[in-house]
Amino acid sequence: MDEQLVFFNGQILPLSQVRISPDDRGFNFADGVYEVLRFYKGQLFFASQHLERLKRSLAELKINYPEVNAVNNIIENLLEVNNLQQTDGLAYIQITRGDFPRIHQFPPANTPPTVYINVKEWKAFDLTKSQSIKAITFSDMRWGRCDIKSIALLPNIMSFQNALEHGAGEAIFIRDGVITEGSRTNIFGVKNGIVYTHPFSNSILPGITRQIVLDICEKENLKVLLFPIAESAISSFDEFFLTGTSPEISGICQINALKIGNGETGPITRFLQQEFEKLKAK
Amino acid sequence: MDEQLVFFNGQILPLSQVRISPDDRGFNFADGVYEVLRFYKGQLFFASQHLERLKRSLAELKINYPEVNAVNNIIENLLEVNNLQQTDGLAYIQITRGDFPRIHQFPPANTPPTVYINVKEWKAFDLTKSQSIKAITFSDMRWGRCDIKSIALLPNIMSFQNALEHGAGEAIFIRDGVITEGSRTNIFGVKNGIVYTHPFSNSILPGITRQIVLDICEKENLKVLLFPIAESAISSFDEFFLTGTSPEISGICQINALKIGNGETGPITRFLQQEFEKLKAK
Repeated sequence: MDEQLVFFNGQILPLSQVRISPDDRGFNFADGVYEVLRFYKGQLFFASQHLERLKRSLAELKINYPEVNAVNNIIENLLEVNNLQQTDGLAYIQITRGDFPRIHQFPPANTPPTVYINVKEWKAFDLTKSQSIKAITFSDMRWGRCDIKSIALLPNIMSFQNALEHGAGEAIFIRDGVITEGSRTNIFGVKNGIVYTHPFSNSILPGITRQIVLDICEKENLKVLLFPIAESAISSFDEFFLTGTSPEISGICQINALKIGNGETGPITRFLQQEFEKLKAK
Repeated sequence: MDEQLVFFNGQILPLSQVRISPDDRGFNFADGVYEVLRFYKGQLFFASQHLERLKRSLAELKINYPEVNAVNNIIENLLEVNNLQQTDGLAYIQITRGDFPRIHQFPPANTPPTVYINVKEWKAFDLTKSQSIKAITFSDMRWGRCDIKSIALLPNIMSFQNALEHGAGEAIFIRDGVITEGSRTNIFGVKNGIVYTHPFSNSILPGITRQIVLDICEKENLKVLLFPIAESAISSFDEFFLTGTSPEISGICQINALKIGNGETGPITRFLQQEFEKLKAK
């Protein structure tokens, strides 16, 4: 197999030739943002929505990347040079405030951002749609701007790892007594035919797949309440599911010791999965 | 001037030859820890305390670096090869969970950590002891484990930059109505001759200079209350100062619009600075 070709600061080159500086602000300070996109049979999925979110993240952190609109073209170039144009996979974009000797304050305004993009074939996942997953709740110890898709993911990975080590496939965060979201996903509940999820706020990422689900619900006349689910109300719900770019839509069969519904992916979750498949096939 | 020599994964080499992988977990996830040490005339200052804190940070994040006890020897080697043995400066240590294709879960246990160490001459600072600095309060939006010296510093740098842009030299964080610490320092107040600072908890870093100050207070019979200072009580204090490895001990002359004391470094702060100088000279 040929070596993976990636994009780094204006060039397409083999992965092993990318040199991130030890002074990169992404490496020293988590001072950067990222996006993950899916492509199905080489076609980028909801790419403009990811691009808009990327721009918002950059703006919130005041990272200046004037060429940001070229990102999706770069991904398409990478699909071509890596011969992935008929493949399902993931594209990863990371942009940091650049390479500058370590100081807390922003580097000079003319410091170029570090831009890194890769694409890879990707199908399998630990959260497969064919089976529902277990989740464990954790106190949401993340910072106050979870709406920004920053690379400051340490609390996320620590909670996700902790969940894995306890036999679960996702960590669900509880803040002020309500479910905010998962360590890498948004969380939905279904009760009496109504779909609930946390409203957009600083406490959750505005997930692209979350929005796709909300749009499906609107189109299919499924009632939605953008209202946080109290931890104490979890047992009263009929279904739970998670959404994310990588896991798409996955049922949750158990939260902590509590079996959800009959322990299998619920009917509304399955319906949403089927509608999502139609979008992928378009 | 010769190029700076640094330590990277077992080797001493020129800075420009260090290649951090774009798959490094420090770059993707802020999955790492760091330390900053001072050296005065080539002598490491409170090095064993920094090493102990480094070990604690690694343990809290479950990062395995068996050779951690060699870190201070490595720094001394770097001082020698960089000809800094008679110089004042800073040593920087960063250890991440290593280089592994991006997944949220921990990489396999045999993945070696990434270890990067540099030393450099350093004297001047924006927070000099000769003058006191202004500070601005910000809502503490950081995550819940500020006791771990992790590289997930995005909230810190955003607040510090914001403070700088408003003419201040430090951001002071307020959580649940009390001062926790600064964006890169611990914060102390003095009232009626009593020194106050936030007790050790998950909300503050156990600062080495903070502990040096507490030890000086004990030795010199200055009364200390490890009790958080309420934001509403700031105006009742006579002095404020900050402590940190880089700024050492610096008076705070103003918090937001409020002048502290007579607007100059207060007498107890000056006394502590003098005692600190004696320790440096040892």
